[in-house]
Amino acid sequence: MPAPTDPTVPKGVYSRREDDVIERIAQIVGLGNIPAGERHIGDDAAVLAPFVGQAVISTDVAVLGVHLDSEYFPLEDLGFKAVAAAVSDLAAMGARVRGAVVAVTAPEGTDLEELHRGMADASRVTSCPIVGGDLAQGRDVTVAVTVFGECPGRGAIYRSGAKPGDQLLVTGPLGRSAAGLRRRRAGASLSDELVVAHRRPRPRLAEGMAARGAGVHAMMDLSDGLGLDLHRFADASGVGFELHDVPVAEGATVDEAISGGEDYELLIATDDVARLRLVFLDRGLRAPLAIGTVVKDRATRTLKGEAFERRGWQHQF
Amino acid sequence: MPAPTDPTVPKGVYSRREDDVIERIAQIVGLGNIPAGERHIGDDAAVLAPFVGQAVISTDVAVLGVHLDSEYFPLEDLGFKAVAAAVSDLAAMGARVRGAVVAVTAPEGTDLEELHRGMADASRVTSCPIVGGDLAQGRDVTVAVTVFGECPGRGAIYRSGAKPGDQLLVTGPLGRSAAGLRRRRAGASLSDELVVAHRRPRPRLAEGMAARGAGVHAMMDLSDGLGLDLHRFADASGVGFELHDVPVAEGATVDEAISGGEDYELLIATDDVARLRLVFLDRGLRAPLAIGTVVKDRATRTLKGEAFERRGWQHQF
Repeated sequence: MPAPTDPTVPKGVYSRREDDVIERIAQIVGLGNIPAGERHIGDDAAVLAPFVGQAVISTDVAVLGVHLDSEYFPLEDLGFKAVAAAVSDLAAMGARVRGAVVAVTAPEGTDLEELHRGMADASRVTSCPIVGGDLAQGRDVTVAVTVFGECPGRGAIYRSGAKPGDQLLVTGPLGRSAAGLRRRRAGASLSDELVVAHRRPRPRLAEGMAARGAGVHAMMDLSDGLGLDLHRFADASGVGFELHDVPVAEGATVDEAISGGEDYELLIATDDVARLRLVFLDRGLRAPLAIGTVVKDRATRTLKGEAFERRGWQHQF
Repeated sequence: MPAPTDPTVPKGVYSRREDDVIERIAQIVGLGNIPAGERHIGDDAAVLAPFVGQAVISTDVAVLGVHLDSEYFPLEDLGFKAVAAAVSDLAAMGARVRGAVVAVTAPEGTDLEELHRGMADASRVTSCPIVGGDLAQGRDVTVAVTVFGECPGRGAIYRSGAKPGDQLLVTGPLGRSAAGLRRRRAGASLSDELVVAHRRPRPRLAEGMAARGAGVHAMMDLSDGLGLDLHRFADASGVGFELHDVPVAEGATVDEAISGGEDYELLIATDDVARLRLVFLDRGLRAPLAIGTVVKDRATRTLKGEAFERRGWQHQF
């Protein structure tokens, strides 16, 4: 967006002009191979070849100092995490990724190239081309990532489709990200395995598409922690749940597994676990882990028979 | 995006929980009629019925104090302008709008409902449903709007297609937005016609689709002012231009018309002005205004025979 309509605004107080910066960033985030008939960065909008089936869209914003502790992590991690978090929302619908656009605000002196290198890394590991963006001045470094994908064949999977009797599963053990943050603050290196899990989360795209293919009833990604997201899932579906287990990742605590968030594993409800396991096996994916059962009574929300309380991080306004 | 993976973060320092705020905002921006087979706010991602033809996507970020002078304008104008600016990028491609997602950061105490009412207003006047969003804490109020649309039939119109000999036209006189800002700062009321032009710009969606239908060669929206955008247009097309006129809006100065920006009129290059006029007339649109001619020599950039210099506002980093 332009700003402001005032020819008297002082110029040159920052070091580089917007057009120049955008050109350099376009080289960093561009994947090189633009499909025939598509146009990415450089026009008023990006143009993509027709989507197949439903279009699936999500937006996610990350703020330096809120979503990433800049004392312990490099700026590029903010870029990586912002893209990964957005792509995870497509995974949660069972969508195939088509692309992303990124809108950044930053104060003078921010290393925008480093920030965008992190986004480019996430773009590569998720095969999600960054097809456009915008830049503006601001006091905070903020990264708003919007991703879009498609659901050919069967439609997208909602969080609202869980039915009494369904089995609940997750695509992996929980708490790795929170454990990594704790370890980093205690002095672990940036390449420590759990620290990497925090810095470089991997959206479960293949798992999401496999689950959609297997005809699961409901799905969401665990971004704010099972302690909050499972309640949202149950609320949306109008059901309760009885958990028999929370799979805690090696090196993580039970509290980190429940409330930590940012694991981006998928939570799935299905009445055909055998089929789900078979599809995952067929595609070379790790078998999902059973954690409990969906029950009809909305008020029943337990772990091993004890109340499973709503807890996790929320922004407050 | 969740933040941060740390159960020790203090809670309750802000007045309202994220889930509650989102629910209220969803009521403000929701258009009510969600088409069959679509799902908007409330899941991990929005799901839209299949797009027809090319998918067109753009993102735009606005920052309070940078893109809107909060001394003179209410917060809702930031929401309106952010959505309108993004939608204008779709107009510039000749696209039909399908929807928008909005990512907001804001400090404690921000009237998020007012901000989103402005977005909802822009959503209504552009028939662009807001289908999803995200909220996070930050020091600045920032609004990142991503819009998506479709181009059935003929593909999108790029800024790079202008050819020597083409006529250049704009969809309306220029400088209204800058004049409105000046008038407001000099004491004009919020309902002054030019002040409204600044606060509530109208993207030229119908004009963009009409121009695409008329087979124009190139198009872009004038967001940063003709003095900057026409050069970008010529650069992208590898051409020069000879202007014979800059249509100055009533109440605006020549400088405001050239450098003011935020008018969101469309700049069009075509070799068939008669057809363009006829299509506009057919659709009840105001006839576009001829301003000059495209020439082969890239270095030729003139207004009435004098050099037309590159000038206008750019963010600096």
